[in-house]
Amino acid sequence: MDGNVPEPSSSPVCVHNPHLETLKDDILYHFSLGTSTHDLPAIFGDVKFVCVGGSPSRMKAFIEYIAAELNMEDPKSEYPNICAGTDRYTMYKVGPVLSVSHGVGIPSIAIMLHELIKLLYHARCKDVTIIRLGTSGGIGLEPGTVVVTKQAVDATFLPKFEQVILGKTVVRNTDLDQSLAEQLLECSQELNQFETVLGKTMCTMDFYEGQARLDGAFCSYTEEDKQEYLKRARDAGVCNIEMESSVFATMCKMSGLKAAVVCVTLLNRLKGDQLDSSHHVLQNYQQRPQILVGSYIKKELGI
Amino acid sequence: MDGNVPEPSSSPVCVHNPHLETLKDDILYHFSLGTSTHDLPAIFGDVKFVCVGGSPSRMKAFIEYIAAELNMEDPKSEYPNICAGTDRYTMYKVGPVLSVSHGVGIPSIAIMLHELIKLLYHARCKDVTIIRLGTSGGIGLEPGTVVVTKQAVDATFLPKFEQVILGKTVVRNTDLDQSLAEQLLECSQELNQFETVLGKTMCTMDFYEGQARLDGAFCSYTEEDKQEYLKRARDAGVCNIEMESSVFATMCKMSGLKAAVVCVTLLNRLKGDQLDSSHHVLQNYQQRPQILVGSYIKKELGI
Repeated sequence: MDGNVPEPSSSPVCVHNPHLETLKDDILYHFSLGTSTHDLPAIFGDVKFVCVGGSPSRMKAFIEYIAAELNMEDPKSEYPNICAGTDRYTMYKVGPVLSVSHGVGIPSIAIMLHELIKLLYHARCKDVTIIRLGTSGGIGLEPGTVVVTKQAVDATFLPKFEQVILGKTVVRNTDLDQSLAEQLLECSQELNQFETVLGKTMCTMDFYEGQARLDGAFCSYTEEDKQEYLKRARDAGVCNIEMESSVFATMCKMSGLKAAVVCVTLLNRLKGDQLDSSHHVLQNYQQRPQILVGSYIKKELGI
Repeated sequence: MDGNVPEPSSSPVCVHNPHLETLKDDILYHFSLGTSTHDLPAIFGDVKFVCVGGSPSRMKAFIEYIAAELNMEDPKSEYPNICAGTDRYTMYKVGPVLSVSHGVGIPSIAIMLHELIKLLYHARCKDVTIIRLGTSGGIGLEPGTVVVTKQAVDATFLPKFEQVILGKTVVRNTDLDQSLAEQLLECSQELNQFETVLGKTMCTMDFYEGQARLDGAFCSYTEEDKQEYLKRARDAGVCNIEMESSVFATMCKMSGLKAAVVCVTLLNRLKGDQLDSSHHVLQNYQQRPQILVGSYIKKELGI
């Protein structure tokens, strides 16, 4: 803030942990970064958009894409991995945009988010928007459709995330920022390059039995059971299924991050389970969330 | 089998899914392998030992280590990643040993195991031993101690894994092969290079709040609450905490794989939460499970 003029719209990234104040040094182990080894405000203080996704190579491709879109390309096209000291997660930065991989599933993204939230807090970042760009299975949608998540729900279609703390289950809500979701939908309509819908996203702990697939190593139910389950999900408003949205929504909400989930559907689960589209088609689909989010970021930056 | 002589000790890798028979092709999507694109029996038919671990680079280091131990080194030291078509998991092979990374947490290792079990089944592998080589937090043990898991337990110290199928919770057991655990302990005593103990391993869904750490982005409990929880765990026989053992035990048991979990403890959780040992010390600790498992494999192969 300049002088004494209040800045009413400024929203910091929050931690909720009094113990952090007592730490002399905070080691962000899974990033291979730390408060005593890195000047986090200098490196990350200008971050306004954090984009996260499961695959390291996809998040590298995203930083190259967004650099070109923002006319901030490195002439040598070199985007160093900020987390080069570890192979758990990868991180890239161009101007106000940070791109971070999170691996597969709730535990993997939760570790990354704990350390990311502390990183943004230590760096004194303000007004940060975070978007998960992912892949998913669609329910009754044409493959390639992009789903902007209205609400993340669990495998019983309820908007909650269960976290076990000291052996006891704590239930947390999975609300996402509705206005951000609407803005992303609007961006997609302006782009007019692919179908985008707003809907609920089911977040599961398993890709095979947990998503009613018939092609895992184990399966004790029938095609009819599967169809009945997926149709109940669809009737509850579920458009797609993935494995990270619930804890992502919960943790971002708790830390004051404006959050959205944008996933492309790679197949229509009512018609099959195997990802048998060609590599080329799947690659094309996976670019859609990044095109949409790139367009949103440009609009927000007035480019 | 030769002729009509029965081979009573031969134990195949099993799937439990009648639907697999109806698949013309089985695409192991997260490995970028498949039954119509790869001759799985030719590539993997001789596999007898599968070693898995979270970190891709650690599993590459393991294949290089085991190749040297078995005198099967590639003169050019080139060990190609069999899953080069994807960045989700990495896989290396030397003779009868397969080394596969599984990422962080139950959902990530579960996807890998579904596809690995199908791979070994399609390849008609028999008498396969699988060992997870990992890192963990110890409870009351000197850092660097190796724990061979006697039983995997959940955050309430019970030997069970809860899997949600079609929205309903199914409880599965987490037994591991006791004789394999004993053999590994014996190997370590013969090696006499580092402390190894047999004990229960607690498997959690989260690294911070889920393991009673005080240094996450969120923490609503006190140091006393943390100590009380970890001491209750210790009193229940828990020696260490990690994030994959329960589903690993469950799935390996279901598929007829002889399974063990061997994790080094990187710190004593009763004394702290942060991983603040030097890189060199942590690297040294992480080699211990591979030294132990390497010694076991050599002994089994009569080398």
